[in-house]
Amino acid sequence: MDLNTCLRKMELVGVLAFATVDEEGAPQIRNISAIYYEPDALYFFTARGKNFCKELLADGRVQILCYTRYKEMIRLSGKAYAVDEDEQIKWRDRIFQEQPNLENVYPKDTKEIGIIFCIDHAQVEYFNLGVNPIFRETYALGNVIVKEKGYDITDKCVGCKKCQTVCPQKCITEGKPFVIQQEHCLHCGSCYEHCPVKAIERR
Amino acid sequence: MDLNTCLRKMELVGVLAFATVDEEGAPQIRNISAIYYEPDALYFFTARGKNFCKELLADGRVQILCYTRYKEMIRLSGKAYAVDEDEQIKWRDRIFQEQPNLENVYPKDTKEIGIIFCIDHAQVEYFNLGVNPIFRETYALGNVIVKEKGYDITDKCVGCKKCQTVCPQKCITEGKPFVIQQEHCLHCGSCYEHCPVKAIERR
Repeated sequence: MDLNTCLRKMELVGVLAFATVDEEGAPQIRNISAIYYEPDALYFFTARGKNFCKELLADGRVQILCYTRYKEMIRLSGKAYAVDEDEQIKWRDRIFQEQPNLENVYPKDTKEIGIIFCIDHAQVEYFNLGVNPIFRETYALGNVIVKEKGYDITDKCVGCKKCQTVCPQKCITEGKPFVIQQEHCLHCGSCYEHCPVKAIERR
Repeated sequence: MDLNTCLRKMELVGVLAFATVDEEGAPQIRNISAIYYEPDALYFFTARGKNFCKELLADGRVQILCYTRYKEMIRLSGKAYAVDEDEQIKWRDRIFQEQPNLENVYPKDTKEIGIIFCIDHAQVEYFNLGVNPIFRETYALGNVIVKEKGYDITDKCVGCKKCQTVCPQKCITEGKPFVIQQEHCLHCGSCYEHCPVKAIERR
């Protein structure tokens, strides 16, 4: 898997879930389909009066979730910003040209209540539970440092094999220390909980 | 539409997007399908080592989004809590019996890393962009007070009809004051922005 294929899959799925945080620090989620894809960025339309817009302008952090027909999950984490005033109409027109059904929601001049946001720096995670062992990978869109999650086995490892026994995906390799195959790890924490010498750390 | 039909639609869609907030106050979203539905509650499985579990235990606020094959959006907002210790296995077994594929992810005893959460108080929003005008409604699961969103026209209204002209969904009725048909409102804010006498308030 790779970044471009992930972005193309998102485009093909079309309707994605966008999560933000509201002024009370609570999670907010909604479907968005009015998105235009460039190879290195995505542009999306919402209305200025929506809480979604308020949340994007106040904070900007957004996570986008895509679930494909092949049961893959793709998750993009980035910061959205409002596109410059003189570029707004260009991107709005592209979105409405590509998705004529939007004209039913915002007919004629009423689409002027819209605002275009862009995400061009993001971390993109691919996660496939439908293969055995499960598979995950992370990519960078733009110049971002990818934040690794999950667990690592440290030098405190005594090689007792307990972690291998309790791993649901059998993704721990013997060695000094033992090693978690990160691309196959569920992040379930079973090895971490069971290690008798506390050799396993959260990343 | 009604609460029970919404819950049944969620059950039929199966794989839903769950949003939480992490320790840095950032939005986090992932797909969850290991859910068991009762008429008045939903129970779901995750692993104790996942960030998702950490976020649920630390904060508990969650929004769940469902997008149906009929292009309806259903959004549940509630607080999740870990089920009592002596009820954990009962609910886990029900989820695994109903969804045998989970055994591929957490085989045999490895499912002991799981934890069951329950949501039995929530606000459930139904939103359908595929009808004209669009349609929305909100329901309560358990004893919760539904928080209304969108806009209201106050007594400052002078009846100039500007709001009717700019409403994308033509959902404003004449009167003293004019009235927004809340079940058809996009919450786009167009009437609010254009009202010449600032008669429209955010709810």
